[in-house]
Amino acid sequence: MTMVAAAITISLDGYITGPNDGPGNGLGDGGERLHYWVFGGPWTYESEPKGEATGADKEYLDEGMTGVGAVVIGRGMYEAADAWGGENPFGVPLFVVTHHPDDAPSEGGFSFVDGLDEAITQARRAAGDMDISIGGGADVIRQALRAGHVDELAISIAPVILGGGKRLFDGFEQTMNLEHKALLQSPFATHITYRLAR
Amino acid sequence: MTMVAAAITISLDGYITGPNDGPGNGLGDGGERLHYWVFGGPWTYESEPKGEATGADKEYLDEGMTGVGAVVIGRGMYEAADAWGGENPFGVPLFVVTHHPDDAPSEGGFSFVDGLDEAITQARRAAGDMDISIGGGADVIRQALRAGHVDELAISIAPVILGGGKRLFDGFEQTMNLEHKALLQSPFATHITYRLAR
Repeated sequence: MTMVAAAITISLDGYITGPNDGPGNGLGDGGERLHYWVFGGPWTYESEPKGEATGADKEYLDEGMTGVGAVVIGRGMYEAADAWGGENPFGVPLFVVTHHPDDAPSEGGFSFVDGLDEAITQARRAAGDMDISIGGGADVIRQALRAGHVDELAISIAPVILGGGKRLFDGFEQTMNLEHKALLQSPFATHITYRLAR
Repeated sequence: MTMVAAAITISLDGYITGPNDGPGNGLGDGGERLHYWVFGGPWTYESEPKGEATGADKEYLDEGMTGVGAVVIGRGMYEAADAWGGENPFGVPLFVVTHHPDDAPSEGGFSFVDGLDEAITQARRAAGDMDISIGGGADVIRQALRAGHVDELAISIAPVILGGGKRLFDGFEQTMNLEHKALLQSPFATHITYRLAR
């Protein structure tokens, strides 16, 4: 039975980026602190991240990809990651939600799909009995929550107050009950995995 | 050395109340879920909470009051709690931040103080070498963070998305680095205690 999990990192005040995010400053001013956990410690856009996740952060990442047979992300995340240099890095089929599927590159293993529901449908087909991971950004996760696609929501809370930026739950007006499934903490993040209560 | 700790409960989407909070509905629509952990499980404003915190929740509450020599809260919280029936329930001096200190009742052990800074000053005097706990609401905690009074910030995250209400960090535009100090989880909340990095 395919399980759909969404995962994203926020600050304690609920932001997925600091202020003034954009090209070359994808996580916004001071937003690097959100992803210290991804790279094993402090980094900045000036000096580029070099390390890798370790300890509880690595455990969380590894568990998040176990059993995953397809990944769905938004176009914004694809662009923010600079298309990972032109090659799908996930090792499984990757579906990019976009209003402009014709923009898809002919190589690199990226499937551009118009609309989240269609992306989930194609991801289910690709994943077979395996699971689907929704990697963000926030808009795709909000859409997936609203449409009832999400079985698990994994939130990494970085120990920082950003004071501005883009909020994960901006404009989200539904109420949902959650259940705790897993909990991990490193010096750089508290990873809480929730099940959506049905 | 007196340590100042602030503690409050939020939903995963950052709200300290659901929509339409007010008299008789202090935590807003559906906001009871924020405080399931306080009362050992589900309750509603219709049926009144009856239980007590257990397990990790009780441990968190007990640790939060250990070494505390004075408590500071906002007038809103005092009113929302209906003045605890007229008697300071904390067992240590309690300072209520208000613009109207003349409203103070003559009995019950409540000290009404005009302004947060003055309340902290009086609480430090009362606490001696012991610690100070800031119990909320959100406005008092935001003021205390802005003024640099807070050494520790303890956030209980209830496993619920409320979709509306009052946000803890509403209008808070400063950035602050935090460090993990403690972590506890029950079925009803994830309690993360942060140190403010200096």
